[in-house]
Amino acid sequence: MRTYVYDFADGDKDMKDLLGGKGANLAEMTRLGLPVPPGFTVTTEACRSYLAQGVAPAELEEEMAVHLRRIEKTMNRAFGDPGDPLLLSVRSGGRFSMPGMMETVLDIGLTDATVAGLAAFGGERFAWDCYRRLISMYGSTVEGIADSAFENALAALRRERGVACDPELSAADLRELVGTYKEIFRAHTGTGFPQDPAEQLAGTVLAVFRSWNTERARLYRRAEHIPDDLGTAVNVMAMVYGNRGPGSGTGVAFTRDPATGARGVYGDYLPDAQGEDVVAGIRDTLPLQELARLDRRCFDELVRAMDVLERRYRDLCDIEFTIEGGRLWMLQTRVGKRTAAAAFVIAAQLVDEGVIDLDEALRRVDGAQLGRLMFPRFDLSGSPERIASGVPASPGAASGRAVFDSRRAAEATGPVILVRRETNPDDLPGMLAARGILTSRGGKTSHAAVVARGMGRTCVCGAGDLEVDPEGRLFRAGSVTVREGDMISVDGTTGTVYLGELPVAPSPVVRHLEGDPENAPVDGLDAGSGPLVSAVGRLLAHADTLRRLGVQANADTPEDAARARRFGAAGIGLCRTEHMFLGPRRALVERLILAQGEQEVGAVLEELLPLQRADFIGVLAAMDGLPVTIRLIDPPLHEFLPPLEELLGAETARERALLAAVRRMHESNPMLGLRGVRLGLAIPGLFAMQVRAIGEAAAIRVRDGGTPRPEIMIPLVGDVRELALVRAESERVLAGIDDAPPIPIGTMIEVPRAALTAGDIAGQAEFFSFGTNDLTQMTWGFSRDDVEASFLPQYLRLGVFETSPFETIDRRGIGRLIELAVKEGRGARPGLRIGVCGEHGGDPDSVWFFHDADLDYVSCSPYRVPVARLEAGRAALPRR
Amino acid sequence: MRTYVYDFADGDKDMKDLLGGKGANLAEMTRLGLPVPPGFTVTTEACRSYLAQGVAPAELEEEMAVHLRRIEKTMNRAFGDPGDPLLLSVRSGGRFSMPGMMETVLDIGLTDATVAGLAAFGGERFAWDCYRRLISMYGSTVEGIADSAFENALAALRRERGVACDPELSAADLRELVGTYKEIFRAHTGTGFPQDPAEQLAGTVLAVFRSWNTERARLYRRAEHIPDDLGTAVNVMAMVYGNRGPGSGTGVAFTRDPATGARGVYGDYLPDAQGEDVVAGIRDTLPLQELARLDRRCFDELVRAMDVLERRYRDLCDIEFTIEGGRLWMLQTRVGKRTAAAAFVIAAQLVDEGVIDLDEALRRVDGAQLGRLMFPRFDLSGSPERIASGVPASPGAASGRAVFDSRRAAEATGPVILVRRETNPDDLPGMLAARGILTSRGGKTSHAAVVARGMGRTCVCGAGDLEVDPEGRLFRAGSVTVREGDMISVDGTTGTVYLGELPVAPSPVVRHLEGDPENAPVDGLDAGSGPLVSAVGRLLAHADTLRRLGVQANADTPEDAARARRFGAAGIGLCRTEHMFLGPRRALVERLILAQGEQEVGAVLEELLPLQRADFIGVLAAMDGLPVTIRLIDPPLHEFLPPLEELLGAETARERALLAAVRRMHESNPMLGLRGVRLGLAIPGLFAMQVRAIGEAAAIRVRDGGTPRPEIMIPLVGDVRELALVRAESERVLAGIDDAPPIPIGTMIEVPRAALTAGDIAGQAEFFSFGTNDLTQMTWGFSRDDVEASFLPQYLRLGVFETSPFETIDRRGIGRLIELAVKEGRGARPGLRIGVCGEHGGDPDSVWFFHDADLDYVSCSPYRVPVARLEAGRAALPRR
Repeated sequence: MRTYVYDFADGDKDMKDLLGGKGANLAEMTRLGLPVPPGFTVTTEACRSYLAQGVAPAELEEEMAVHLRRIEKTMNRAFGDPGDPLLLSVRSGGRFSMPGMMETVLDIGLTDATVAGLAAFGGERFAWDCYRRLISMYGSTVEGIADSAFENALAALRRERGVACDPELSAADLRELVGTYKEIFRAHTGTGFPQDPAEQLAGTVLAVFRSWNTERARLYRRAEHIPDDLGTAVNVMAMVYGNRGPGSGTGVAFTRDPATGARGVYGDYLPDAQGEDVVAGIRDTLPLQELARLDRRCFDELVRAMDVLERRYRDLCDIEFTIEGGRLWMLQTRVGKRTAAAAFVIAAQLVDEGVIDLDEALRRVDGAQLGRLMFPRFDLSGSPERIASGVPASPGAASGRAVFDSRRAAEATGPVILVRRETNPDDLPGMLAARGILTSRGGKTSHAAVVARGMGRTCVCGAGDLEVDPEGRLFRAGSVTVREGDMISVDGTTGTVYLGELPVAPSPVVRHLEGDPENAPVDGLDAGSGPLVSAVGRLLAHADTLRRLGVQANADTPEDAARARRFGAAGIGLCRTEHMFLGPRRALVERLILAQGEQEVGAVLEELLPLQRADFIGVLAAMDGLPVTIRLIDPPLHEFLPPLEELLGAETARERALLAAVRRMHESNPMLGLRGVRLGLAIPGLFAMQVRAIGEAAAIRVRDGGTPRPEIMIPLVGDVRELALVRAESERVLAGIDDAPPIPIGTMIEVPRAALTAGDIAGQAEFFSFGTNDLTQMTWGFSRDDVEASFLPQYLRLGVFETSPFETIDRRGIGRLIELAVKEGRGARPGLRIGVCGEHGGDPDSVWFFHDADLDYVSCSPYRVPVARLEAGRAALPRR
Repeated sequence: MRTYVYDFADGDKDMKDLLGGKGANLAEMTRLGLPVPPGFTVTTEACRSYLAQGVAPAELEEEMAVHLRRIEKTMNRAFGDPGDPLLLSVRSGGRFSMPGMMETVLDIGLTDATVAGLAAFGGERFAWDCYRRLISMYGSTVEGIADSAFENALAALRRERGVACDPELSAADLRELVGTYKEIFRAHTGTGFPQDPAEQLAGTVLAVFRSWNTERARLYRRAEHIPDDLGTAVNVMAMVYGNRGPGSGTGVAFTRDPATGARGVYGDYLPDAQGEDVVAGIRDTLPLQELARLDRRCFDELVRAMDVLERRYRDLCDIEFTIEGGRLWMLQTRVGKRTAAAAFVIAAQLVDEGVIDLDEALRRVDGAQLGRLMFPRFDLSGSPERIASGVPASPGAASGRAVFDSRRAAEATGPVILVRRETNPDDLPGMLAARGILTSRGGKTSHAAVVARGMGRTCVCGAGDLEVDPEGRLFRAGSVTVREGDMISVDGTTGTVYLGELPVAPSPVVRHLEGDPENAPVDGLDAGSGPLVSAVGRLLAHADTLRRLGVQANADTPEDAARARRFGAAGIGLCRTEHMFLGPRRALVERLILAQGEQEVGAVLEELLPLQRADFIGVLAAMDGLPVTIRLIDPPLHEFLPPLEELLGAETARERALLAAVRRMHESNPMLGLRGVRLGLAIPGLFAMQVRAIGEAAAIRVRDGGTPRPEIMIPLVGDVRELALVRAESERVLAGIDDAPPIPIGTMIEVPRAALTAGDIAGQAEFFSFGTNDLTQMTWGFSRDDVEASFLPQYLRLGVFETSPFETIDRRGIGRLIELAVKEGRGARPGLRIGVCGEHGGDPDSVWFFHDADLDYVSCSPYRVPVARLEAGRAALPRR
C-alpha cells in the first residue's frame, strides 16, 4: 500500500524523489545514528496528489497522526499538552534545492493554552517570543498575510517602548505583541488564530504543498530548468531550542573549506540563538572553533558527526545544528555547495584520500566551473571596498569610469562601465563600447545579461542595492555615491561591485595550463593556487584518457594557434581567412571589388597570393604535425567596404566608385546573401588563389622539413553541386603544385539544406564540420545580432527557450539536423570525419550532445579548449 | 545479340530512346507504308559506346555496310557508282528535340569520280552545287572548319562574277568553287577532301556522335534539363532532290493550324528547292494549298499521308517532305509544336473527334500554357511594326518610353521600358520602376530574365537584332532607330518588340473564367476565341473532377477574394493582415511603435480594432461559406516607419522620436528578426486585438445571416511553445465573444525548425500551412531579394540550380522538410489539415509535388488559381 508519510528512521539519502533532498538527508542522518530530533516527512507524492485533486489524500491525516504519536513518545512530550507541550517545525524540501523558496513555520503547537507550559520549560519571555513568531510565520505562510503587517506592529512597539532591537523587549511586551498579532490575523482572515495544534499542523502542511505553485516558485524553476511536476515534500520535526540561554546555540558547519577546498572544519556558531538568526546577520557569529572552548563535548560530537557524514557522502557536507542546553541536535545536512576552485581541489583530495576514484572526481567538476576559473580576476589583496552585489550575469573582471548614458559611453575615451537601471536595444552602442555593464534590475535573462553574454562583456545585473539616477548621473549604494566619471570595478564572475580601479590578473589556472614563460606567475597572486592548478591538471589529464571526442581550436593567427596548442588543442578546426584581409590589405579587397574584367581581378589576386601564402606558412608552422582546417573566405565582400554614411559625401573618383559599389552590393539580409561558396563561384579566381596559397605554403613547409597538414573547408554549401564545382577547381590548382602533401577538401554543414542533403554532399566532401552558429540562425530563422537585442530575453522569461540556442545547442531542432547529417553523411561515405566548429564546440552541454551524436571532434576558441577537453571526458564516463 | 543499326523498316515510334525522335518517327512512317526514302538509324547506344570508349563499336562498320546495301538495292543505285551514284544524307537526332543543335550533312557519296554521274542524272549545275554543299557541310561538321571560310569564298566568287545571289552562278562557277572549297579543306586539314564515299559516311557518323558533347550542346541540355548521358542517334537516308527543277520542291506541313488549333492542312511549299531553303527564307514560300494546283497527285498523296499520321499519332503532326520529279517523299514527321491556345483547342477537338478521351486531353495541356493564356496581350489589330524579337523571358505586355539608364528610369514619370545591353545589380531601381525590360544580350537565365521574373516585370532579353547605344541613348534595330523617350512595346509572352504604344487587353480566357459583367469582352479582341475559352473551360472542369488537392487563393481584400472565387478558389488560404496597416493607418502603427507603456499601446490597439474588424467583415462576406485563413501580422514593425534617410534631418519632436525608433529597431537581417509570432509575443495585446477583430467580425457576419468560416494562422512559429502561448491567449479572447463560430487555430510551417519539430507543433495546431517562400529562404540560407539580384543567374548557368527554387519547389531539400513535417504532423494529429500558401502553390511542377506529398490544398494568387486547378487535376491522372 502507498505510504504518504515516512518516519526519518525509514528513509535514506537516495530517496530524494519521494522525500525531497532535506527529508532524505534527515533520514540518512537518523540511520547513521546521529542526533536528529524525531520527525517525519510527508512525501512529494502526497503533494502531487493534493495539487492534482485539490484535496489531500484521504489517508494523510491518519498517517500523520500515527507518526506524530511516535515523536511524542520519543520526546516524551505531547502535542498540545498545556503542561509541557511538544512543538513542531514544518519545512518544505523538494528534490532540488530552491534557495529562497523555502517555506518554514516553527513552534507549531503553541496556543493560548500551551504557551504557559512552554514558559515553564524555557521562561516567559522565550515562550511569548516563540508564540509571536508562530503567529507571523503561520499568518504569512498559510494565510498569505504580508510580512510587513507583522513587522510594522513590531516596529511600532519598539518605538513605543523606546528600544532599538527586539531582545530589549520584555516578556510583557512580547505578550502584548502576541495580542496585536492575533488582531492582525483576525483582521486579515476573519477568524481567530487557530487554537487547535492539529489544525495548525494540517494547515501548514497544505500551505507548503500550495507554495509549490506560486508564481515566484514557477519562475525560479523555469530559470533553473527544474520540472514543474515534481512537487515538494514536507518535513515535520520536533522543535529544539538554541535560544534557551548560554548553554544553547545554533550554527552551520562545513567538512572542508567551501571557498578553497582546504581540509578542516569550517563554520559559524551563534550562542543563544535560533537558526534564522545566524543567517540574518543581526549578531556577529563566532568561528566554529570557538565552540570547542564553549562546549568541548558538543564540539567533539559535532566533529565526529561531520566525519561520519563525509565518509557516508564521500564529499564535502554542510550541516545545520542546534545545541539545546548542552545537547547537540543535527537539523540538516547536504552535500555542500562550493566555489569552482574548491570543487577541483576537493575532488582531487578525495582521490588522494582513497574515498573516490578519478572517474568519480571527474563527475564532481564541470566545464562551467573550469570556465569560471579561466577568466581574469581582480587582485583583491588591496582589500577594495565592496559597494554592492548582484547577479553574476556575464563573467570577467572590468574596471572603468561609470557612465550613465549609452551615447556618452559610446563616445567616451578610455574604459567605461555602463550603469543603467536596465538596458534596452537603445543601449547597444553603449554596451558595445563599455568594458562592463552594471544594472540595478533584472536577472540572468534580462536584456543586459543576455546581450552582454552574447557580446562577451562583463556584466553584473540586478544589483538591487543600487539606486541609479540617470538624470543626476550618479548612483547610490548604501552610503556611497558614485558619480559619472568615478572609477568602479565589476566582477561578472562573482557579481561583486567595487569602488575604484582594481588590478586585473590572468587566472593562475590559465598561467599553469599555458605554461608559457612569457606568462609567468604574478607576485602574490598565485599564492595558494598550487592545489588548484594541480587538481585541474590531474582531472584534465584523466579526461583526456577517457574522451572519444577530439578537441581542436578555432584560431586564425600563429599566436592563437600556439596558445591553443598549449591549451591542448589537437589541431585547428577552423582557421578563418577573412581576418587576413583586414588592416592594410583592405585596400586590396577594395581594388578587387572595383576591378573591371577578369584581367584586373586577376592582377589583384596575384598581389594577394604571396600575402595569403605567408599567412598560411605561419599558421602551419605553429601547428606543425597537426591538422589545420582552413576555411575559404566566407563573409560578403561589402563587409570590407566603408559604411555608406562615410561615403555619402564622396568627392574623389575612387570614393565615388566605392560609393557606387557599396550601393550596388547592398543586401537587405547580408547573412543570407552573397557569401561563402556563392562568392567563390561568383568571383572566378578568388577561391583558386586561396587554394594555391594553401598548397604553396604547405609545399614550402615540406621543403623546410615541416609536417604541414592543411585541410580546405568550403563554407556555406547548400548543394553538392556547389561543392563539386569548387572541388574540381581546387584539385586542378593543387595538382600543379610540387611537394604539396595530399590536402583533404571538406565542407561546413551550416545551411539547413546541407544537413538535409548530407548524403549527396558526402560524395564530394572528405570531412564535414558543422557551423552551428549559422545552422542555428537559419534553422530557427533568426539572426543572433537581431535576436539577442530584441526578443531573446523575453523568450527566456516566457520559457520558450530554456537557454539561448546560441549558447547551448538546441537538441530537438538543430540537434536533429546534425544527427540526420551524421547518419546520412557516414551512410554515403563510411568513416566520414565529422566535427563542429561553431561556438557551441566549447559549451559544456553541447559537448555532451556532440559526443552523443558520435562526432569525431569539436573545435572552439583557444580558451574553451580545456573546458571542451574536460567535458568530452565527462561525456565519455558511463551514464548513471 | 546487340544491334547498333536499325533499318527504318525495323523500328517504330515508341523506340525513341534507342533511335532518337527523328529515327523512331521515320521508322513509324515506313511501317505505315508512307513514301520514306530508304535508310537506317545508328542507335544512341552506339553513340554512348563511342563516347565512352573513344572508338566506335567493332560491329558498327559491318552493320552499316549491310544496311547500305539494302538502300542501294531499293534505290537501284550504288554508293560510289560513277555512273549513277547513290547519295546519302546524315542527320543527328536524339531522344529529345534540340533545335539548333542538329548536325546535317547532305549529298554524301559525291567525289570527283561520281560528280559526273550525278550530272548525268540532274544536270551539271545541280551536280556541282551539290558537291560544293557537301564539302562545306562535311568540312564544318567533321573537321570543324569555320563556316565563314566557305562563305567568304562564295561571296568573293559572287563579287568576281558580279552576281547578287547564288542561283545566278553558272555550273562552271560552281565547279571553280568546288576547287576553291577543296583548297580551303586542305589548308585546314592538311589532307585532301576524302574521295572514298565510305570514308565520308563513317567520318560523318562519328562526327555526329562527337557533336553530342560540344559545349554548346551541353549548355543547351542543361538549360532544358535534358540528361547528358543519352547520346544521339544518327539517321542515314538516301538523298532525294527537291531542287531538280520545276517538277520538284520541298515543304513543311501541319495537320492542324499550330497557331490557333483550327482544323485543316497548313504549311509552306517551295518549288525547286532543298530543305534548308524553306527555313532560310531566301525565297518566298507558297501556301501549301498552292501545291494542289501545281501537282494535284502529290498534294492528294500528302493529305492522305497527313491523315494517316494524325490517326496514328492521335495529335497534330508536322511534316517535312520533298517532291522529286513528281514523286512525294516524306523526310520527317513528329508531334508538332503549337501555341498554348492551339494546345487547348486541339486537345478539345480530338476529344470531340473521338480520338482521345478527356484524361488524355488533360495530359496534352499544362499549367504553363494556361498561365501564358492568362496574361494581358497586345491588341495587334492595328498591325503594329515588329522591330525585333528575343527570348520571351518574363510574360506580359508592356508599353512605355524607352529609357537607356537605370537612374533615369527610376526618376521618370509615366511608364517606361528599360533598354540595356544586359542588366546588373546596379539596374535594380530602374527595373523596379520600369513596366518592361528589354536587353540585347543574355538568355532565360540572364540577370535581366531572372530578376524580371522574380519581380513580375515583363521582359524580353537577348534580342540580338538590337544595337543598344547607351551613351547615345538610342538603339537600332535594322533600319529603325529608337531614341530615349520614343514609345515601344514589348511582349514578354512571345518575345516580340513593337514600335509605338499598343493597346493592351485582358486575355479572353481571363474574361471568360471571371465571367465578370464589368469585364465584358472587348470589341474585336475576342474574335475567334470561342473554341479556346470553351476548351479551357472543359479541361478545367475535367481537372476539377479528378483532382484531390483543394485550390484556395492568397487574397487580402474583398475584391481579390471575389475574383479568386470566380476563378474557382475554394476559400482563402492566406489572408495577410499587414496590408491592412498601410495608407492612412500607417500613422496608427507609428503611434503603436512610439507608445510608452501598456496603456498607450492599449489605446492605439483600441483604435485599430474597429478598422481591422471592418476589414475582416468585408473579406468574410466575399468568401461567405468558404474558409478564410487569416494570418496574424507578420513583418517587422519598422517596415511601417519611414526610411532612415528621410528622417535624418528630423526637426519636430515626432520626427525625432521616429528617428530614434528607426535607429532602435534597425535590424541587420530583418528577415531573421522581430517578426511574426515573435512580434506577437513582444507586443502584448497586438495579436489579441487581431484575434478579437476576427472573432467579432465573424459574430457580426453570423448575426447578419452569413456563414463565416475564419481560421487563424500564426506566422513564423519555430517552437511549439510559441504557438501554445499565442493559442492560449487567442482562446481566452475568443471565449469572450458571443455568436462567433468555432475558429480553428493553426500555424504556418515556414521556419525549418518548425518542420523539424512538426510532431510537437501539431499538438497545438489545427492546421499547417507551408510558407514555402520563407522555408526556401531559410533552408537554403539565402534571401530571395539578395539572391535574384546577385548569384541566381550565375547558379542557373553553372547548373547548380535547374530552376529558381523560388519558382519551383526544391524537392530534394525543401521537399524533404515538407514530407517530414507532413508525416510527423499527421502522426501526432491524425487527419491534420495541411496546405501551402507560398508562391509555389501556383507553380505547375510544385503542384505535382504537393499532390505527391499528400497535402490537402494549395493556395496561390488569384490568377494562378486556374493553373493550380489544371495541374492538380493532371497530377491526379495515373502516371505513365
